[in-house]
Order: sequence, then C-alpha cells, then structure tokens
Amino acid sequence: MPLVVTGTIGIDTVYTPSGHAESVLGGSCTYFAAAASFHGPVRIVAAAGDDLPDEHLGTIRHFPTIDASGLEIRKGSKTFRWGGKYHDNMDRRDTLYTELGVLAEAPPKIPDRFRDSEFVFLANTHPAVQLGMLEAFPHRRLAVADTMDLWINTARAELDKLLARVDGLVLNYDEAELLTGKRNPVAAARHILEMGPSFVVVKKGEHGSLLIHREGLGALPAYPAEQVVDPTGAGDSFAGGMMGFLAAAGAKHPGNGSRRGASFEALLRALAHGTVMASFNIESFSLNRLRALKREELDARYAQFAGMLRIH
Amino acid sequence: MPLVVTGTIGIDTVYTPSGHAESVLGGSCTYFAAAASFHGPVRIVAAAGDDLPDEHLGTIRHFPTIDASGLEIRKGSKTFRWGGKYHDNMDRRDTLYTELGVLAEAPPKIPDRFRDSEFVFLANTHPAVQLGMLEAFPHRRLAVADTMDLWINTARAELDKLLARVDGLVLNYDEAELLTGKRNPVAAARHILEMGPSFVVVKKGEHGSLLIHREGLGALPAYPAEQVVDPTGAGDSFAGGMMGFLAAAGAKHPGNGSRRGASFEALLRALAHGTVMASFNIESFSLNRLRALKREELDARYAQFAGMLRIH
Repeated sequence: MPLVVTGTIGIDTVYTPSGHAESVLGGSCTYFAAAASFHGPVRIVAAAGDDLPDEHLGTIRHFPTIDASGLEIRKGSKTFRWGGKYHDNMDRRDTLYTELGVLAEAPPKIPDRFRDSEFVFLANTHPAVQLGMLEAFPHRRLAVADTMDLWINTARAELDKLLARVDGLVLNYDEAELLTGKRNPVAAARHILEMGPSFVVVKKGEHGSLLIHREGLGALPAYPAEQVVDPTGAGDSFAGGMMGFLAAAGAKHPGNGSRRGASFEALLRALAHGTVMASFNIESFSLNRLRALKREELDARYAQFAGMLRIH
Repeated sequence: MPLVVTGTIGIDTVYTPSGHAESVLGGSCTYFAAAASFHGPVRIVAAAGDDLPDEHLGTIRHFPTIDASGLEIRKGSKTFRWGGKYHDNMDRRDTLYTELGVLAEAPPKIPDRFRDSEFVFLANTHPAVQLGMLEAFPHRRLAVADTMDLWINTARAELDKLLARVDGLVLNYDEAELLTGKRNPVAAARHILEMGPSFVVVKKGEHGSLLIHREGLGALPAYPAEQVVDPTGAGDSFAGGMMGFLAAAGAKHPGNGSRRGASFEALLRALAHGTVMASFNIESFSLNRLRALKREELDARYAQFAGMLRIH
C-alpha cells in the first residue's frame, strides 16, 4: 500500500546537553521517511535548495526503500535551516534561528506517479498547504496530519478545514490544550474528534503517547531510554514508524482496503512501533542512529517493549 | 502474607480546579491501606489526636480487611493537618499549611502481634523514624519505603542508611533527580540501586511510572483518566495497590517465601494494579471513591488497562 509523506528537508544546527551538531540533515520529511522505510516503501514530497550538500542527499538515498523522486532540488533556492538549543531536561528547546528558504516559495510539485498513494502523512506545515497536498491523493485510505502551535494560533480557519478532512491528527500534549482550551489531554482529544478525525495521537515525548480513537482509548509509555543525545526528529520518527507499520499491515491485509481509516487495535500497535523507532532516533544527532540501525536491533527492542507491557 | 503500613492519618483541606473539600480524611497510611485492602488484609501503624472525627474513624473501619488495632488515638494530641491547593494542570500544588500535631511526638507503638508482618511499607516520614519501624519487623520478606524532597534535603545521612536496608524505594520523578543529581530518571534510579534497594519505582503522576529493577526495566502509562477531581493520595493508593497485590500474590505462592524481594515480573504487575487503583482514587476527594469502589469495577478496569497494553 503506497505510503507518501509531505514535509520538510532541513539543515539543522543543534545544541543539546550531550554535545552539538552543525549543519546536519534534518526536516520532518527526512526523519519520517527514514523511520517508515524500515517497514516498506515510502515516497517523499519535499523541496530543498541547491545548497543541500551531496552528503545529505546520500543519507536520504542510503535508505533503499525511500523513493526520493518527489524531492525537488531548486536551483538558486536555499534549503530550510533551523538552529535549536535544548534545555537541560531535553523536553524544552529554544529556537536559535529559522531560515525558511524554499519553504517561503511555492510548495513542491507532486509527481503524477505518486497520485495512487493510499497512506498519506502530512508533516507539519501551513494547514492550507497540507490541505492542497491532501487533495492530490484521491485514492487515500488513511490520511494523517501533524500540526503545531504556530498554525493553531495563526491559521485556525485553515486548520479547522484540514481537520474536517483527515482521518487522524498527531500533535503534542501542549498543542492539544492550545487547540481546544481543555487541560486534560483525553478531554482535549475527544473535542478534536468532534472536529473531524476518527483518532488523535497525543505525543508526550519522554512520557509516551495517548491514542484517543472513536473505538477506544489507549496509552503507551515511552521506551525507558537511559541516554538521550538529541530529541530532534523524535516526533517525526515516531510518526514514520507508526505510518510505516500501518501501510505495511495494509499491504498484508488488502481485504480491508475498502474501508477508510484504521482500527483501534492496529493503531495501538502502530503507536508502539513509532515509540520504538523514536527511541533509537534520539540516541544520536541527525539521522545517524537510524542510518546505522539494523533490522534485528529494531525487532529485538520492539519485542522487549511489547514484553514489558504484557501484564495480566 | 501479612502486610503492614506505617504512615500518617491526616485531616486535609484541599482545593482543586474541580472544587474543594474541608477537613476530610487523608494521610499516607489511610490511602495506602484503603487501596491495599482490596487485595487482602492490611495492618496500619499510625497515630492521631482525639480530634479525629468519629466519621473519619468510621471511614477507615468501612474497609473490612483493614486491621486498625495499630492506630493510636492520643488523648490531648492533635491529628496531623494539611491544606493544599492544586494548580490548574493538577500536577503541581501549593501547601497552604501544615500542622504536625502528633507527628511531632513519639512515633506510634507497633503492636506485638504485628511483628510477624512480612510485607512492610514505610510511607513517607523522617527516615530515622522509618528505620526504627523497619527494625520492628524482623520477619520481613519485602520492605519498601517512600520518601520526599524534604528528607533528601535535610536528612540525607539517615536516608542513606534506610536505603541500604530496604528492598525497594518509591519516589517521584523530581525526587529521583534531587537524590542523585541525574536528570534522566532511569540513570537516576540505577544510581539509587547502587545505594541498596533491588528496585526503584519512579512515580510520574498522570504520565505513569517506571520500574528500575536489578532484573529489568519497565514503564507503564497512567490509566488515561478523563476527569481528575483530586490527585491527593494518588501516590499512596498506587503504593497500596502495588503492595496489596504483592502480599496477596505472596500468600498464593508461599513457596517463594524463603527469598527476599520481588521478581521483576511480579513488580510490573503490581505497578499495574497500583496504577488502576490510583486512577479510581483521583476521581473524587478524600477516600470517597475508594469507599464506593466495587470489586467488579476494579477488575473491569484492570482488564481494560492490561488489554490496552497487550500489543504484539
């Protein structure tokens, strides 16, 4: 079942209590696709400038199941750049600078051959752009969007329109409150369900995630990580692990294809796959850990995580 | 397997965003014992003044498996009183007042017939007092202590002595960092293991709990509660559910009796029982919800919680 992600390619400079990394590969699309690629093919739709180092392109191409034919390299344009510094406890960060570059230009074009994509992830960007991207995939079976405080505050009408059209929304704990005015994340997510989606995933970083679905309510802890080097991309690699699993499961059970959305049970497993993927990603800067990650390591940690939760 | 808890009986006045309750029954011993009583017998060792209303004594006696013969009512003394106000997000609170009363006097006497207790929970109080209590139970198979920032800051030497003698420590997320200087809770707990205990339970309130055990590493989410009325006693009812389960499991499998401590698997299940118990406790002020709680409700929510975590 073809999976596509629309989002950003970035050049990041990151300071964490563990060290720093300069001008490394980042971006929501990158982290998502690298994570999803462990489950099967993933198509990316994104734009970068011609300042994107070959080395970074090489990292994207390192993942054999990423289809990068929807990555536009624009001559004379600049790649999106972000600099951030994490606080001591890693759960808060300050943005040092943001250089929009190509993100201030027209959105990337979607290759015609991507139009049959059935699993669609709209990584965080302006909701009007997300809405345009969404409509480019008429065969979608499951469309999930991410968003952020900026759009909740500045593009609420467009965000509301988007929410009415997607199957699922992924957002942070604080953003769920900001969007709904409700302190309790379960109550906030139930409010969001009334706005359109059939499920909401509330990301809580080191505290795990919540699944609020029309069919049920779930919660998972984060994998208890002992050393966190860089939390950048944790949310996107979580989403990539989640959507990659769902697309692969959809491919295995094409009989369910007629139905839109995803079941509560499938989503809860997908959240667990996202959790484990994110736990690897935060072990190093940029895509370094995912690049070195072996299938056996991923399977072993997933089995350990699932085993840890098997109480009776 | 006899279970005993040493701790406080309190008269609380609590303000939360959901309302307030005046001069209601509280105290670590009370919440712990009410929770543990759902699993089997529990003995309490605590002191109160003769100002403790009959109604509050009646609440304690309402739980048929609580043995209150170790509850000293001291003539002319005052019961410990605490007033607190929770912030909007319920995860922080301000103490409005603390009136120590009997807590400033000699510790309660332990009835001789309690000396055969095998499961011992030392609820939060001065570690020197906890150490004295601990030695009163020579037949202990599993001794677990709770502590708080106050003792970490003011009675570190006594706390270190206590840690060298208990099997387990239960403490809050922030306290684990305060005790060890380590930001990461898993790293902090591993440090605590070196100080004596064979396991540490890190309580994270609405974000669940971590189990750091010599034999393994576990994490559980909180039960995704939609409405929290009063978080007071959540930690103590968590500990009560946990220890009550372990004592009951010990009674069912007396063959394990020769060995001190508890296995990783048993503790993880015990944490789940604590989690579910705490999720009921926070649904109302004081002991109101636990008093009304039916066995079937408890079993049903436990099954739901365990089912929610059964991924594969």
